[in-house]
Amino acid sequence: MNVTELISEIKKKKSFLCVGLDTDVNKLPAHLPKNSSGILEFNKTIIEATKDFAVSYKINTAFYEHLGSEGWKILEKTRELLPANVFSIADAKRGDIGNTSTMYAKAFFENLDFDSVTVAPYMGRDSVEPFLEFSNKVTIVLGLTSNAGSADFQTNTIYTPSLYKTVLKTVSQWGTPDNLMFVIGATKAEALKEIRTIIPDHFLLIPGVGAQGGSAPEVCKNGANSSGGLLINSSRGIIYASNGKDYGEAARREAEKLANETSIYT
Amino acid sequence: MNVTELISEIKKKKSFLCVGLDTDVNKLPAHLPKNSSGILEFNKTIIEATKDFAVSYKINTAFYEHLGSEGWKILEKTRELLPANVFSIADAKRGDIGNTSTMYAKAFFENLDFDSVTVAPYMGRDSVEPFLEFSNKVTIVLGLTSNAGSADFQTNTIYTPSLYKTVLKTVSQWGTPDNLMFVIGATKAEALKEIRTIIPDHFLLIPGVGAQGGSAPEVCKNGANSSGGLLINSSRGIIYASNGKDYGEAARREAEKLANETSIYT
Repeated sequence: MNVTELISEIKKKKSFLCVGLDTDVNKLPAHLPKNSSGILEFNKTIIEATKDFAVSYKINTAFYEHLGSEGWKILEKTRELLPANVFSIADAKRGDIGNTSTMYAKAFFENLDFDSVTVAPYMGRDSVEPFLEFSNKVTIVLGLTSNAGSADFQTNTIYTPSLYKTVLKTVSQWGTPDNLMFVIGATKAEALKEIRTIIPDHFLLIPGVGAQGGSAPEVCKNGANSSGGLLINSSRGIIYASNGKDYGEAARREAEKLANETSIYT
Repeated sequence: MNVTELISEIKKKKSFLCVGLDTDVNKLPAHLPKNSSGILEFNKTIIEATKDFAVSYKINTAFYEHLGSEGWKILEKTRELLPANVFSIADAKRGDIGNTSTMYAKAFFENLDFDSVTVAPYMGRDSVEPFLEFSNKVTIVLGLTSNAGSADFQTNTIYTPSLYKTVLKTVSQWGTPDNLMFVIGATKAEALKEIRTIIPDHFLLIPGVGAQGGSAPEVCKNGANSSGGLLINSSRGIIYASNGKDYGEAARREAEKLANETSIYT
């Protein structure tokens, strides 16, 4: 799915919802086996239960990688479970010198056929461009993250303008709103208005709603643009809404609730 | 292997050499099959051929990841090929919010049992500390990288001091020379003297010698400290020294040459 198709899906579903599949084998509902097949059954149920409200799914690669090659098999199978009419995100936060970034891009864009992948900006242009070279794929670069550590460098007050603003300004010139998005944490909703003066047209992937404390309506009010321009991610708040056999219905309920909170802004 | 053991290995072999296993299936010697078993045979031969001179091996995860779960199996098997008396590095450049970084740390420190992993600093303290919490393991944080893109943020002249100096100064307070190292590109040898005033005691992982144009003696002259304090990585210059059946001997020759260039500084 490309950005144009994503925009039409947002309008159709009236939702900015992205469901994060940060599936932790130790947090599976009590009745599921704590192994590969348990994870897969869980992911399948969550996807089925939430797909009426979600326009996007974000798969956090760390949660699969720590299980080794077996985990990568689950990642591959989970990718295959995603319906065609959602925007798929590999939340991998990769980035390296040119030829290595090309390999990472192949891993996520070709081998796994994700629509997009998250990338760290620290190494600069020649670490990001290899991802941008893949046509009909989207590179999502870290801008202002939702965690406390964002204060260490991204918003460190010894620098004016803040590092994250320089990152947004600089990186936005390397691509277009059709192949480039940015990660902006929901916990920084107050910064979104100013961020929209720097990058008015790019989509923003917004993690940090729910467990991390960000507010979806607040994010929409400050961050939505004329084409929508937002993907609001919730992981734990949706996928772990219940630890019982009703985890699918509970996830559906939370997904619907979050989608509804954003619908008037779509 | 921990840092104390690494130091004694450096003194014993009189070498700072780290061999980078950036094994590209398309660059294997002509007679090897272009598949998993070809990659494994290649890695085995390279390790056998260079282990008298190398104190460390750096496995670039991208080169395995782009082959999917099959690639991760090769990564696992390659890790098992590394001898016990070398310092193993997963060059993965990971980093995410706390619980996700813990998963990445488990992937490389537990599942794959690497001695160390490379980590990107952009997301700050709570993205790096989960790695530092693993005892007897080493976190290698990006400082000043060898690529042209390092000028975009790391050495962007709108910031004083340079971002990379703030990163070195700040991150060095999160760990000790026993659990924390930094990546400094060999192409920035002239900066090493000043870097040593900021982080006199930490080991530096130095990529960029060989194909990227950095000089090993120059790096040693400016960067070595009383415990050695350097790991000088060469990947392409060693592993692709020959495309023929003599690729093992050719790699051994290049490894010996590079080790010899550094030996008086160990």
